Amino acid sequence: MKIARFSHGESISFGVVDEEEHELVVLKADPMFAGYEPTGERVALAAATLLAPVIPRSKIVAVGKNYREHAAEMGSDAPSEPLLFLKPNTSVIGPADTIVLPPQSERVEHEGEVAVVIGRIAKNVAEADAASVIFGYTIANDVTARDLQQRDGQWARAKGFDTFCPLGPVIDTELDLVNGTIETSVNGERRQEGRLADMVHSIPAIIAYASSVFTLLPGDVILTGTPAGVGPIVDGDEVSVSVSGLGTLTNRARRA
Amino acid sequence: MKIARFSHGESISFGVVDEEEHELVVLKADPMFAGYEPTGERVALAAATLLAPVIPRSKIVAVGKNYREHAAEMGSDAPSEPLLFLKPNTSVIGPADTIVLPPQSERVEHEGEVAVVIGRIAKNVAEADAASVIFGYTIANDVTARDLQQRDGQWARAKGFDTFCPLGPVIDTELDLVNGTIETSVNGERRQEGRLADMVHSIPAIIAYASSVFTLLPGDVILTGTPAGVGPIVDGDEVSVSVSGLGTLTNRARRA
Repeated sequence: MKIARFSHGESISFGVVDEEEHELVVLKADPMFAGYEPTGERVALAAATLLAPVIPRSKIVAVGKNYREHAAEMGSDAPSEPLLFLKPNTSVIGPADTIVLPPQSERVEHEGEVAVVIGRIAKNVAEADAASVIFGYTIANDVTARDLQQRDGQWARAKGFDTFCPLGPVIDTELDLVNGTIETSVNGERRQEGRLADMVHSIPAIIAYASSVFTLLPGDVILTGTPAGVGPIVDGDEVSVSVSGLGTLTNRARRA
Repeated sequence: MKIARFSHGESISFGVVDEEEHELVVLKADPMFAGYEPTGERVALAAATLLAPVIPRSKIVAVGKNYREHAAEMGSDAPSEPLLFLKPNTSVIGPADTIVLPPQSERVEHEGEVAVVIGRIAKNVAEADAASVIFGYTIANDVTARDLQQRDGQWARAKGFDTFCPLGPVIDTELDLVNGTIETSVNGERRQEGRLADMVHSIPAIIAYASSVFTLLPGDVILTGTPAGVGPIVDGDEVSVSVSGLGTLTNRARRA
């Protein structure tokens, strides 16, 4: 099932995507908290503006250097344990929203990633049970001011600017990602590609590790790392991240 | 005015502290969002359990190495710009709650700090206007797994464990902190002390800097750094952070 959050007219709603009819089955409330009760209304996909499918109430936990070739391009080995960092929920934007390149940075880069949306309160979850706390999957762009990341040492600023966490276009609650691929392109030219099976730390391993530190809450988002090929995005660029089965998340960048 | 969040019987409320009567004037709702309308009820302070006065909806922004002598004890200079990092809202506990020492760490340390509670949506705030976005001040303990901080490089895990952000006991909305002092003791023995005037980056400067990166939301909390004297807390220790005018935040530590 594919879940969208969208605006239509004056209202913001959640809906289930009916892919045959190209429509959204409008839901009464956020299905993560209130189930799948339909209002009876349907909205044409073409008439809806898709929003970030989730705004985390608590946190975005991200994993650094989780593909060996990306770790290598950053000049290091992949860490033996997941390297965790946090992005604030104020960095989240939706599909087709604009990535604003801040004046503080001269080099902002794309990092296409698979995002896991947590569906249940989770603490000290065993790897074998990790699937039970997942609500679904979506696509993220872990936008990074590379110059500030290197200068600060801590990554909170470089990865935390407003608009630096595009999410979407929808959450898929049933996808089997293991054999999937991820690809990031800029202005139609492929820059990053990876096989999800090549993650150094698997999604269940990341959930086990992160939940041994933080209580994960419904709506928390975990970014699972980016494959090799990161590179700059500049004013006017259109950056698209595609994951097999999840569609494509496209955002345009503009200089503040 | 001093604002508390507290439980009494089955309910959780906000209240204004009446220091003469040792009572709480119960409010209808969170004053940060809904003003100061009283319910008419009063609760004896002795009958209330104080909770963390705020749970950030968005983020805790913290500043590293913001007192020269603490930067020196950590083996570095104070950075020329505020060094920002994030703690998740799941790390927040209240006064008298227990700091749980996680099995992953062999050295958990106290870092007593002044916390600023943001009261208005704030982006690109000038230093001169910073006071206008402050709701009030409280006390924080930026509890840190020092061994993991050094091992990970990124501080999200070491500073983000559940229970690693005690806040309280109350929010003071009128305090003049400039001439204040901060002191942290363990089992009654003083370990840290500092003058708030010795912050490398002032509170207005931190707000200006942080709000040039992140949109700050009402209820966001900014931790302003810790003075020299950080050290370990172990199972059974009682750690107290006192700030002039704000009272004392006391938490006991126990091994998980």
